[in-house]
Amino acid sequence: MSDATDEVQIHRGLQGVYFDRSEVCDIDGRAGELWYRGYSIHDLAQRSTFEEASYLLFNGDLPTSEELGRWTRELVAARTIPAPVIEVIRSVKDAHPMEVLRTAVSALGAFDPDVADNSPEATLRKSVRLASQVPLIVAAHHRIRQGLEPVEPDPDLGHAANFLWVLEGKRPSEDAARLMDLDLILHAEHGTNASSFTARVVAGTDANLHASVTAAVAALSGPAHGGAAENVMKMAMEIGEPENAAAYVKALRDARKPVMGFGHRVYRTEDPRARHMREGVKRLSEEKGEPKWYAILEAVVAAMKPYARLGVNVNVDFYAGVVYYLHGIPEDLFVPIFAVGRTPGWCVQVVEQYRQHPHPPAHALSGAPRDYVPIEGAE
Amino acid sequence: MSDATDEVQIHRGLQGVYFDRSEVCDIDGRAGELWYRGYSIHDLAQRSTFEEASYLLFNGDLPTSEELGRWTRELVAARTIPAPVIEVIRSVKDAHPMEVLRTAVSALGAFDPDVADNSPEATLRKSVRLASQVPLIVAAHHRIRQGLEPVEPDPDLGHAANFLWVLEGKRPSEDAARLMDLDLILHAEHGTNASSFTARVVAGTDANLHASVTAAVAALSGPAHGGAAENVMKMAMEIGEPENAAAYVKALRDARKPVMGFGHRVYRTEDPRARHMREGVKRLSEEKGEPKWYAILEAVVAAMKPYARLGVNVNVDFYAGVVYYLHGIPEDLFVPIFAVGRTPGWCVQVVEQYRQHPHPPAHALSGAPRDYVPIEGAE
Repeated sequence: MSDATDEVQIHRGLQGVYFDRSEVCDIDGRAGELWYRGYSIHDLAQRSTFEEASYLLFNGDLPTSEELGRWTRELVAARTIPAPVIEVIRSVKDAHPMEVLRTAVSALGAFDPDVADNSPEATLRKSVRLASQVPLIVAAHHRIRQGLEPVEPDPDLGHAANFLWVLEGKRPSEDAARLMDLDLILHAEHGTNASSFTARVVAGTDANLHASVTAAVAALSGPAHGGAAENVMKMAMEIGEPENAAAYVKALRDARKPVMGFGHRVYRTEDPRARHMREGVKRLSEEKGEPKWYAILEAVVAAMKPYARLGVNVNVDFYAGVVYYLHGIPEDLFVPIFAVGRTPGWCVQVVEQYRQHPHPPAHALSGAPRDYVPIEGAE
Repeated sequence: MSDATDEVQIHRGLQGVYFDRSEVCDIDGRAGELWYRGYSIHDLAQRSTFEEASYLLFNGDLPTSEELGRWTRELVAARTIPAPVIEVIRSVKDAHPMEVLRTAVSALGAFDPDVADNSPEATLRKSVRLASQVPLIVAAHHRIRQGLEPVEPDPDLGHAANFLWVLEGKRPSEDAARLMDLDLILHAEHGTNASSFTARVVAGTDANLHASVTAAVAALSGPAHGGAAENVMKMAMEIGEPENAAAYVKALRDARKPVMGFGHRVYRTEDPRARHMREGVKRLSEEKGEPKWYAILEAVVAAMKPYARLGVNVNVDFYAGVVYYLHGIPEDLFVPIFAVGRTPGWCVQVVEQYRQHPHPPAHALSGAPRDYVPIEGAE
């Protein structure tokens, strides 16, 4: 991965370079395993909520039900955008949603009472606010560009359900809310990827949280980072019917072109997050009376089987796009939804970076895996 | 600089890690030398203009007078901010100028006709626009927060003189304009520092130029990156009179605290840019009838002499702050002025990153030093 020329060793793409140790997340790319603070993503996906998973990421341990109640109330109380930031969104409303999100997150820094305070306590307060504000920004912009007014958040709804409510202006079904919740849990954190790395580099100069997260949004807007879900949906539409999938894949592979939603910089086997989204796509596409989308994706997976031994496996974004599509969410919001999910991960890595100094970033592991204890049992 | 723990080698702060080769800038930290595209910073500082130096950075060679004329006209033509971005600035006007600059640069992306086009040609067009727009943003915000209207740019003024004009609303003296021009040349590019590195990481995801430069502004806002000039000015004010400098320095050093404006991550001798600013401070502080500021700085340098053999030498920002202060520029604009100077460097590194792929960044050298040829002789 690195070439030695003259005396200087060049590490292209920073492959294999470690900057620090991180306690937030652990990834075993060969085994296809992912842990948040030692808890397997499978346990969290099946048994947790976004609120619980985000508490875990920030606080290092699963919450008691009292702690979770308090955390949830803090997230709910933070569901508000200063009026001038809504004006900023109106000023840039015709731009791509990622341009708008980046600008609005940056503008939030102008109004946050703790903006310049990088202490762990202030950064945690700001993180809670951003976790609640990022979905509101995405939704408010989507409403405004359709000529509608932003929807008032509903304090009785959970994080994921409220996001769908403010985005669409109608109550989501329990199943739809649960699937969005799952999506946000799966995207909440993933080690030193490009956007989290960017957040850490910025935090490494002692820049504040809003600067760091604005920069992370900027990095996520790059198609090579956040664009997979959108591209998979485009591919599924081009394929059109399941029986076309094999020929479509073969034509791409013969031309040595990549098939969207396969392969990952870290995983050498199936992305452990993919299986949970797969089940969601199956259920949702049947529920919506459009089973062909699930059938197309599975036909693509079958056609890709011969290449799987080369380490080209399906990743989480292979299924995410179809979920959003079946919800009626336009393609240009797929990456912003990724940002909604990843905001806690960016914030917690900034907290960690402030603590660790000096300057840049991380990628490493720590601690042993832990068994998930459902919240009833934790009391 | 790296500690090996378990089997993983950790490179803290990315010290000594190279990501790629860069053709833009070359730094010899031991010798205290800096070149832009092979031309010594001393030649450029003494004989060039910001327009010429920025042409060189983007195009790789010094311009003929015809090329410089065209480049200058392009920069002048780009001196305009879309009205909605002025509205964005008004919405966040009470924030720190770096929060405002980051937000406004981000908002510019919403209106740039080439925003999503990452081709070298489109990126160059966008770079020219940003080089002219960043100073206008800094100035417009400063006017607006004082309850004044932004000043119309003057197409007959050079880049630096126009910046002072739109900032202050009065014609700068030739000397003042020349000193700002020098400051912008000296800050235009400096290899893989934290903000340029951030821009490259973001560009490495195929994110667009506005995303990359927004992230660079975010990184520069960190006190550990852009804050030195401001801190030196605060220190000079605390010292108050030249005769207090020695005791002030001794107290800091005894307490093992850093003295502002000394030391640099790269240079092990005097920052080659410092001497040019020193001369400017000397002249300007006499001209303004406040010679004590130059005297205070020189007294601090004298008091630091015993520590110089440890590699603690004066850096460019040691003098820059006093220049701004003597111009009557408030302290919170010192870092934004750094951004005005550095915008070409960020942009040209993004162009280079797009070309080089895959993903992250650079720090290396290329080519032999070149003799500066003044533009008369180039024809």
